Amino acid sequence: MGDLLGVAVLGAGHMGADHIRRLDHGVSGARVVSVADPDTDRAKEATAGIDGVQVHCEPQAALDAPGVEAVLVASPGAAHEEALLAAFARGLPVLCEKPLVPDAAGALRVVEAEARLGRRLAQVGFMRRYDAEYVRLKSLLDSGRLGRALMLHCTHRNVSSPSHFTSDMLINSSVSHEIDAARWLLDQELTAVSVLRPRPSGNAPEDLLDPQFVVFETSGGALVDVEVFVNCGFGYQVRCEAVCEDGSARIGDGHSMLVTRAGAACEEVAQDYLVRFADAYDREVQSWVDATRQGRVSGPSVWDGYAASAVAEAGVRALHQGVRQTVDLAPRPGLYEDDGNRPR
Amino acid sequence: MGDLLGVAVLGAGHMGADHIRRLDHGVSGARVVSVADPDTDRAKEATAGIDGVQVHCEPQAALDAPGVEAVLVASPGAAHEEALLAAFARGLPVLCEKPLVPDAAGALRVVEAEARLGRRLAQVGFMRRYDAEYVRLKSLLDSGRLGRALMLHCTHRNVSSPSHFTSDMLINSSVSHEIDAARWLLDQELTAVSVLRPRPSGNAPEDLLDPQFVVFETSGGALVDVEVFVNCGFGYQVRCEAVCEDGSARIGDGHSMLVTRAGAACEEVAQDYLVRFADAYDREVQSWVDATRQGRVSGPSVWDGYAASAVAEAGVRALHQGVRQTVDLAPRPGLYEDDGNRPR
Amino acid sequence: MGDLLGVAVLGAGHMGADHIRRLDHGVSGARVVSVADPDTDRAKEATAGIDGVQVHCEPQAALDAPGVEAVLVASPGAAHEEALLAAFARGLPVLCEKPLVPDAAGALRVVEAEARLGRRLAQVGFMRRYDAEYVRLKSLLDSGRLGRALMLHCTHRNVSSPSHFTSDMLINSSVSHEIDAARWLLDQELTAVSVLRPRPSGNAPEDLLDPQFVVFETSGGALVDVEVFVNCGFGYQVRCEAVCEDGSARIGDGHSMLVTRAGAACEEVAQDYLVRFADAYDREVQSWVDATRQGRVSGPSVWDGYAASAVAEAGVRALHQGVRQTVDLAPRPGLYEDDGNRPR
Amino acid sequence: MGDLLGVAVLGAGHMGADHIRRLDHGVSGARVVSVADPDTDRAKEATAGIDGVQVHCEPQAALDAPGVEAVLVASPGAAHEEALLAAFARGLPVLCEKPLVPDAAGALRVVEAEARLGRRLAQVGFMRRYDAEYVRLKSLLDSGRLGRALMLHCTHRNVSSPSHFTSDMLINSSVSHEIDAARWLLDQELTAVSVLRPRPSGNAPEDLLDPQFVVFETSGGALVDVEVFVNCGFGYQVRCEAVCEDGSARIGDGHSMLVTRAGAACEEVAQDYLVRFADAYDREVQSWVDATRQGRVSGPSVWDGYAASAVAEAGVRALHQGVRQTVDLAPRPGLYEDDGNRPR
Repeated sequence: MGDLLGVAVLGAGHMGADHIRRLDHGVSGARVVSVADPDTDRAKEATAGIDGVQVHCEPQAALDAPGVEAVLVASPGAAHEEALLAAFARGLPVLCEKPLVPDAAGALRVVEAEARLGRRLAQVGFMRRYDAEYVRLKSLLDSGRLGRALMLHCTHRNVSSPSHFTSDMLINSSVSHEIDAARWLLDQELTAVSVLRPRPSGNAPEDLLDPQFVVFETSGGALVDVEVFVNCGFGYQVRCEAVCEDGSARIGDGHSMLVTRAGAACEEVAQDYLVRFADAYDREVQSWVDATRQGRVSGPSVWDGYAASAVAEAGVRALHQGVRQTVDLAPRPGLYEDDGNRPR
Repeated sequence: MGDLLGVAVLGAGHMGADHIRRLDHGVSGARVVSVADPDTDRAKEATAGIDGVQVHCEPQAALDAPGVEAVLVASPGAAHEEALLAAFARGLPVLCEKPLVPDAAGALRVVEAEARLGRRLAQVGFMRRYDAEYVRLKSLLDSGRLGRALMLHCTHRNVSSPSHFTSDMLINSSVSHEIDAARWLLDQELTAVSVLRPRPSGNAPEDLLDPQFVVFETSGGALVDVEVFVNCGFGYQVRCEAVCEDGSARIGDGHSMLVTRAGAACEEVAQDYLVRFADAYDREVQSWVDATRQGRVSGPSVWDGYAASAVAEAGVRALHQGVRQTVDLAPRPGLYEDDGNRPR
Repeated sequence: MGDLLGVAVLGAGHMGADHIRRLDHGVSGARVVSVADPDTDRAKEATAGIDGVQVHCEPQAALDAPGVEAVLVASPGAAHEEALLAAFARGLPVLCEKPLVPDAAGALRVVEAEARLGRRLAQVGFMRRYDAEYVRLKSLLDSGRLGRALMLHCTHRNVSSPSHFTSDMLINSSVSHEIDAARWLLDQELTAVSVLRPRPSGNAPEDLLDPQFVVFETSGGALVDVEVFVNCGFGYQVRCEAVCEDGSARIGDGHSMLVTRAGAACEEVAQDYLVRFADAYDREVQSWVDATRQGRVSGPSVWDGYAASAVAEAGVRALHQGVRQTVDLAPRPGLYEDDGNRPR
Repeated sequence: MGDLLGVAVLGAGHMGADHIRRLDHGVSGARVVSVADPDTDRAKEATAGIDGVQVHCEPQAALDAPGVEAVLVASPGAAHEEALLAAFARGLPVLCEKPLVPDAAGALRVVEAEARLGRRLAQVGFMRRYDAEYVRLKSLLDSGRLGRALMLHCTHRNVSSPSHFTSDMLINSSVSHEIDAARWLLDQELTAVSVLRPRPSGNAPEDLLDPQFVVFETSGGALVDVEVFVNCGFGYQVRCEAVCEDGSARIGDGHSMLVTRAGAACEEVAQDYLVRFADAYDREVQSWVDATRQGRVSGPSVWDGYAASAVAEAGVRALHQGVRQTVDLAPRPGLYEDDGNRPR
């Protein structure tokens, strides 16, 4: 390949700074040419030591910096829609952190804008599709060796939730990963959702409904259940068991070292998603850089981002109303029919 | 201890013959003195080599044989109520295979009959309470080391279902084990049930709704979900994960030998419940013999048998009607308040 | 079967008391009719509640009690030879705890005495042959599915050693179990032994060479290595990996419950051989009672006991001299050629 | 960081081509500017699509190409000494695939040449030091949480050996990885070695002594045993268990997906070292590129390469002579005393 891909990064917070570091020396083939963040000090800190990088307050200015060939959006979700449309207006390929747009209506506007362009420019940051274990499970399911998938049993546990976390966010922030993973693994849409609420853990903040148990139905008749428990105390644990007609497969229980001491043989449990999915983030961004340099767009589409938002909204309704909710998706534009990533 | 306990066994089918063998030389302290089965030939076959055993066509005759001090009921469920009442009438301690009585109304009549006696005579054959793994899990939960239990995730898989198996039986025959195990592990009653029906496996017989996904709510606010899949093809697999406030514990994935060959490291999966729970059956019957010889009754009570039937009936209604059903239990007689086994 | 087998138990210490309890109500078909121990108080304590049992100071008196049909020897090893010869003189079947006789010369005298009788009366208490995991491994090796065994990697770890434990005892007390297990699993004699001495653990008592690493060569060209570490601190851990031409199989790492808390997923490690091998002891004694009631003798023979002593003696020489020692066995009497348990 | 590091690659065979691909787009911060291979056709094939790369027949010509700032040596071992000395003459940093030099005498000449330079230029390609599992084990041992290491039990298995593989190569090609890993993990030199030879597997080529069992002693009194079995048939399996005073730790048994079907729960075993250690190779080269761009040299030194050769030579002698051999190392030049990687 030729020259390095010039990337503008919008947002220099926790996730943005991590991506800046990754683009600078974690992956090959890219360089950071501009960064935008309202807090220009933290943007400068995140770009210290990078030759010739521009720091801006405004996203548009960062997009217009010389040498920008692609955009990585890591600003807060509320700013995503504007950022995506600005990138589309300039014809710039985008990697947009999840959520695509927080609400389904906004996400649908992005879908429609890209559909009007007539070609894909954006990829959504569902990094689990790049995790080695998920890739292996997807490959096994696609191989047909286990027959049709009947159920997915999923677990999503965090040590503790940040102070701003709400009961809705267990679904539209945490479970949104399972929503995308299930659509991708099964190649099916999620069509309905129920949320069951066990009595909350005494370790959860008051008024937080934690844990929750979410059950999705799919267009192919499968069930997807998710235990989401964001104050489990012991670790960051993401597991998925696919139960198929001819066997089952389980990821998320693997271990790399078994330590025996004081009466027990123990495997360490990761404490943090940046640890658990570090390699997945690297592969995601490397894959995006490689594809972009070749003029291609692959990975999760804005349709996937929209579908995740729509399912999450139905989930939040189900949480509030206590009964099953159906998911109503807009018609899928033709652009997303042939992208090789579409759920059927 | 002194002389051997004289036992009448009602039923000499698959399970009855197994118990006859077990009483004769699998456990200590008992001897089989009489057996009743309408098919006296198979009763004779099952008792071959046992000195002085009587074989009868009629249960009542077997109960009245000289030397009978206790009864083990392994006849078809439909015959249980009559057998139990006959044992009660003679003051004989009983170990009754599950189900106590197939329908909740009949089970309640047994409860009332024993309550009128004013003392416990019967134990129900929920053998999982005697399985080493379940006992370990129960002990851990009771210790409080993991805090309050929030959820139980259960799996119940069989290689294939017998030809007479119906969709209702996934609940009232298979899941009835999880119903009792959950009540016992949590020390709570199950108060409501929902049944979700994924698209059936192509390996299930036509018209059999297999697998099913059953979710129970409990009197303490916990959730119990059960995947029941009786044509999974690969093995007999019973697992339970208890998710608690301060940690989780999982049984059913243990292995005793890891064999590596041809590109894979494999653990054998049991094919049959008589293999998986062989030790549990032995311990159950030994425990019953020991207690009976000491004039005690312990283990699952007829109240537990009734509760399992009532919950299973609600489950079957939920399967048919497609919506959540509540469980309505009769008032619990005082006899079952203090037995040390009661769910609260 | 008919009446209960009357057993005399010699020795009422830790192991003897455990066997008395087992014969009384752990296994079926036997009753304890007499017990001998120099400390008659502890013998009385061990037999409390057993009807009609006689307690003696002298072994011979216990053997001569009315109703004695078989003998279980659980006295100290130094008393075994005399006890075995006394049982042989009375034609009584014997189950003799390991070691058969502490020294190979004494063990050989027992072999010769039984050979003169012309029939087997004694079984040696190598209980691992009755452990479910070892039985499964043996069965797999015998099946030929993995091809010829090339190596056994063994681990034998104890939490801590009793105060009287010597460096020699790591071999002739601890490793003696692996010696028998290897002969049995491979159906081969052990022909040479080397002992390597890593720098002792700081947790071992001063002057105790702990751990040791013992390597045996076999008559079929296989290697058997054993890590023996009796002050490992964390648990009682017995593992064996058989490496064969077409695959490998490992036992001793199985778990029955996985507990996740505080950053780790842990399996409990047994602390004690009476816990780890509880079922094996039960099966061993039940098997002996059953065989004896049928007039048969099976299980490890006195030849096996002699071979274990001879190999252990060579091991102790190798430990002292720091170089490989060959094992010289006496010719095997014909009686032990056809017993179905002989190594080839 | 600034411009890309210009790298000359010597050797375009299996390993060299893999490194060319890795430098081009697997890691960041480097570019391939020249390649040397006697077979210029395969060198051209390996560099297809790389802008401006020069292909040469002679190593010296590749080193003299404009823009060369560092060298990666992936030619056959016999060519390493000359390549290293040529790089030293030009002051170029080198990453040299293992073995440093096939024989200890040649390796020592490289050590002396670098010592004369007075600064480190070369790193040896022992990639296990970059494997996530080994790194975790090293970190645990260094933490002191398990106390002093007493023994390492290692397994090194390959599916099958290439046709040119000799009995010596089990030690100086395969076990050389364990030699370096043990020195690194324990921070000790290996001082003596014994090789035990079980009867070869019927699946090994005739005359190949496979498997072998190698036992090393260390300067700190630890033991390191290695089962090396290069025709095990079932997979590429590298395991290491460290037994310490206060516990043990094991790597190499981890799994990422458990598949249950047809009576067994199975984990896949990698078939190939390029699969098992793919990430380690990436991290190794990335780490070398990063350090070189910063003017630093880290990683395994030529002293480590020499020590591995000297221990392997003693191992081959032990294999041939059937008795324990001591390892005699030359005095360590002061240059390697302070490199932070030295065994003590």
